[in-house]
Amino acid sequence: MTDPGSPAAFPPTEPRVAARQVQRVGPAGRTTVTDQLAVEAPLEIRLQWPTATGFQEKTLAVTMRAPGDDIELAAGFLVSEGIVRARADVVGIEPVGRHEADSRILVRLQRGVPVDWQRLERHFYTSSSCGVCGKTSIAAVETQATPTYLKEGPILSPSVIHGLPATLRAAQAVFEQTGGLHAAALFETDGTLLALREDVGRHNALDKLIGWAFLTGRLPLHRAVLLVSGRASFELVQKALMAGIPFLVAVGAPSSLAVDLADEFDLTLLGFAREQRFNIYTGGWRIDAAETARDPG
Amino acid sequence: MTDPGSPAAFPPTEPRVAARQVQRVGPAGRTTVTDQLAVEAPLEIRLQWPTATGFQEKTLAVTMRAPGDDIELAAGFLVSEGIVRARADVVGIEPVGRHEADSRILVRLQRGVPVDWQRLERHFYTSSSCGVCGKTSIAAVETQATPTYLKEGPILSPSVIHGLPATLRAAQAVFEQTGGLHAAALFETDGTLLALREDVGRHNALDKLIGWAFLTGRLPLHRAVLLVSGRASFELVQKALMAGIPFLVAVGAPSSLAVDLADEFDLTLLGFAREQRFNIYTGGWRIDAAETARDPG
Repeated sequence: MTDPGSPAAFPPTEPRVAARQVQRVGPAGRTTVTDQLAVEAPLEIRLQWPTATGFQEKTLAVTMRAPGDDIELAAGFLVSEGIVRARADVVGIEPVGRHEADSRILVRLQRGVPVDWQRLERHFYTSSSCGVCGKTSIAAVETQATPTYLKEGPILSPSVIHGLPATLRAAQAVFEQTGGLHAAALFETDGTLLALREDVGRHNALDKLIGWAFLTGRLPLHRAVLLVSGRASFELVQKALMAGIPFLVAVGAPSSLAVDLADEFDLTLLGFAREQRFNIYTGGWRIDAAETARDPG
Repeated sequence: MTDPGSPAAFPPTEPRVAARQVQRVGPAGRTTVTDQLAVEAPLEIRLQWPTATGFQEKTLAVTMRAPGDDIELAAGFLVSEGIVRARADVVGIEPVGRHEADSRILVRLQRGVPVDWQRLERHFYTSSSCGVCGKTSIAAVETQATPTYLKEGPILSPSVIHGLPATLRAAQAVFEQTGGLHAAALFETDGTLLALREDVGRHNALDKLIGWAFLTGRLPLHRAVLLVSGRASFELVQKALMAGIPFLVAVGAPSSLAVDLADEFDLTLLGFAREQRFNIYTGGWRIDAAETARDPG
């Protein structure tokens, strides 16, 4: 269990990498390749503790995570939150669930380990930014988002996409000084920068942008292009959908669940947008095909 | 308000960049320089809504964010969560607070805008990973962490630190395939890799490591070195302290609050550890001075 090169101490119950067909767009045109995505999926951590008459159980947290090492994740979460201190505080930690799709870890506490639910609820009563229940979030998107733009344009030109990262970098004020901020920016479909926001959290940078659009009467952003400086998570796709944004361009990689959610709502999701290249994960019909060579394969 | 190059539409109430004296360690030795850090600080978002007899108020979320654009952040958060849809749903959004250190935005809702607190609480009832109230977290660290290692060794050699990122990269299995995962690794003070975990969330990668240490009886990790592949946030320092880890080495930049918390508990925090260089932000006494030239300045 100390060998970091071997498979995880607790074998993953779900695959950690998902293969997807993507279209790679670069100087040589558009080719279809298989890309490997990091899997992102919700995990529920539940606590069980003995009472005078039996046992009680409650959900402690639901987090978006890479599957695997789930038992360790649950244990570490409890340590980080100060709920357990010694190995003996825990009677057992095991996966539970009624059906396969469930990822749920039950932590059974030793009698007498105090759990201050009031403190925990105050402590956890926070943003969805970090890792919220995927199912709840998908349900929220499904009820709230009004994807009226889905079967219409706009169509985006690859040359505009190639120019977005440089425009972002040129406009960033704080990033260059500290190296510590994520950026999110909104563009028109001709590449004109509309607004740029930065934050220590990528979700906050996007919320600031959406708040700007809300306060200035621009929602829904049915003709806007969103560029994010890092990776594209499930959460960023969710926020883009809530604001009615049809294009999400990430400088980094998307997660599997980001691609799934984008696909479900026909959002155009592009990744690895750098050095005159990008990958199309979903919604490729909104990318101008005339400007790129056809798939030679 | 559409000019992204101009100051933010809503001027920041707190500085966004903090200058700190750091020691830069590289081939030329150790020099003291001023580094610019991205400020990370908690923001509380409160909702107020009219009732039959007056008004009610409740905290919706507390998030760690870069100060500035706070009103937009609050508005965007409400849109992302599906609480408001139209500009008219909001009567007012303004900063409130009894004293200067408070960062609190009050959103006053229009009469009749429904707020499903039950759904929100279920939705937000999640991990501290994203952005939890700084004060609560600091209090938790103060009560839980037992920094017994503080005035003792171990001492770490710069040459060991230089080697950590390469060891991490060589051991990473999934990262190379997807480009989508954060990594966290524990090392002994001679550079031997103890364990490596990866996740879509940096907080989860660290929780997995701490869980591994907990389950295998290794806590507290008073002689371990923690390396993280990205930036060092307040939250990562907090988790390291809860596990008793004296060294946190980040490949990226630390936030201001990460440095503040590390300083308070005398954790050794290093950033920008790459290409035979690193910066010492706090706890420099644990870095072997004999191996690096003295500050010539």
